Amino acid sequence: MNSIITVGVDADDTLWHSESLFRLTHKRFVDLLAEHGDEERINAQLAATEKRNLRLYGYGAKGFTLSMIETAMELTDGEVSTRVIREILAAGREMLTEPVEPLPGVEHALAELSKRYRLILITKGDLLHQEQKLAASGLGDLFAAVEIVSEKDADTYRRTFARHGTGAEQAVMAGNSMRSDILPALAAGSWSALIPYPLVWAHEAAEAPVDHPRYAELASISELPAWVDRIATG
Amino acid sequence: MNSIITVGVDADDTLWHSESLFRLTHKRFVDLLAEHGDEERINAQLAATEKRNLRLYGYGAKGFTLSMIETAMELTDGEVSTRVIREILAAGREMLTEPVEPLPGVEHALAELSKRYRLILITKGDLLHQEQKLAASGLGDLFAAVEIVSEKDADTYRRTFARHGTGAEQAVMAGNSMRSDILPALAAGSWSALIPYPLVWAHEAAEAPVDHPRYAELASISELPAWVDRIATG
Repeated sequence: MNSIITVGVDADDTLWHSESLFRLTHKRFVDLLAEHGDEERINAQLAATEKRNLRLYGYGAKGFTLSMIETAMELTDGEVSTRVIREILAAGREMLTEPVEPLPGVEHALAELSKRYRLILITKGDLLHQEQKLAASGLGDLFAAVEIVSEKDADTYRRTFARHGTGAEQAVMAGNSMRSDILPALAAGSWSALIPYPLVWAHEAAEAPVDHPRYAELASISELPAWVDRIATG
Repeated sequence: MNSIITVGVDADDTLWHSESLFRLTHKRFVDLLAEHGDEERINAQLAATEKRNLRLYGYGAKGFTLSMIETAMELTDGEVSTRVIREILAAGREMLTEPVEPLPGVEHALAELSKRYRLILITKGDLLHQEQKLAASGLGDLFAAVEIVSEKDADTYRRTFARHGTGAEQAVMAGNSMRSDILPALAAGSWSALIPYPLVWAHEAAEAPVDHPRYAELASISELPAWVDRIATG
């Protein structure tokens, strides 16, 4: 019998849309700079800037906005128009104020899980923005704790599940990112469930584990409570 | 006898310089835009933008960089040169990579406190940047826990001192900000010690409490261990 004490869930693209908003902003950025390159070139340049800045800015909409401005400077050889800068700032601000709507099935699944397990939100991104999204989602009361972290690696899960429970071995992590939610949680000794979201940021993509006894891919978050219950009684 | 279990300390301008770096960046910003207004006007406009954006961006260097760009747009009626944008991005990047040097007496005081109390770092700002500064300072191992928060109000201290100890009444908070470190910690029921830093961001200024039995202003962090010991044995 596997006692499960803690269930961690990811936020962006697991509980509510996020990547779709980044993609829309990408598209708006491409349109703004259309005279300076085709979509492929602009996207490649933006991705390169984001990647280079990740170590400095971390995850989230503010760093992404700064990377868009920097990319616009590069694509225009420094001749970017003030209209473009203004539009980028506005796009960044809209990302931070976009309404938050839980994805289908989320509220019911979290309510079920919170009855039987210590339910923890584990997310990365801008600290204030993540707190604001959680507040706007109306889901805050379902969580015993919220951990907003700068990176999700095996050590993050070890610390978090030790702090909020009895350690990683008696914990489940669920989320949409193979790279951030699944692989490091498995490496820490936890169970983990992939809840796919139709869009995946290239940075978060990774190979699925093969025949791992503590891993499953679920069709939706609605399947999560029964999956955790089966582990806990199995 | 007042049992003291937890001691919380602020980071920026308590353990290392921060506001001086913001001031230097302000000065650089004023120089960059000198042809569009005098120092007073530029500073007033930047302060107004920062204040307006605080709810959206929160504290920290990334939001400050975005506010500088926005202010430059306003001061130039949208005719900002790309050189100015480039310089602002560079200034923001330098704030994020500036070396971190503990202020005099900090290491010794923290080492003393960590022997007898649960020592907690409580700070606001960019999540990743605060973690990086702590790592660069070499002080990380002295803390039992680190709490990076989006706002420091009485509830923040209640939650943090309950989580890492026996609650706010048996805790001390020390820092340089009357508004963020002292008043809300006293409101939560804690003891609190002001450790003045020569520069105070206007946003953090507030009136000192009068004759509050749990408040003291210290000359430097070197006085903190003895002050806490006196409370604990008093």
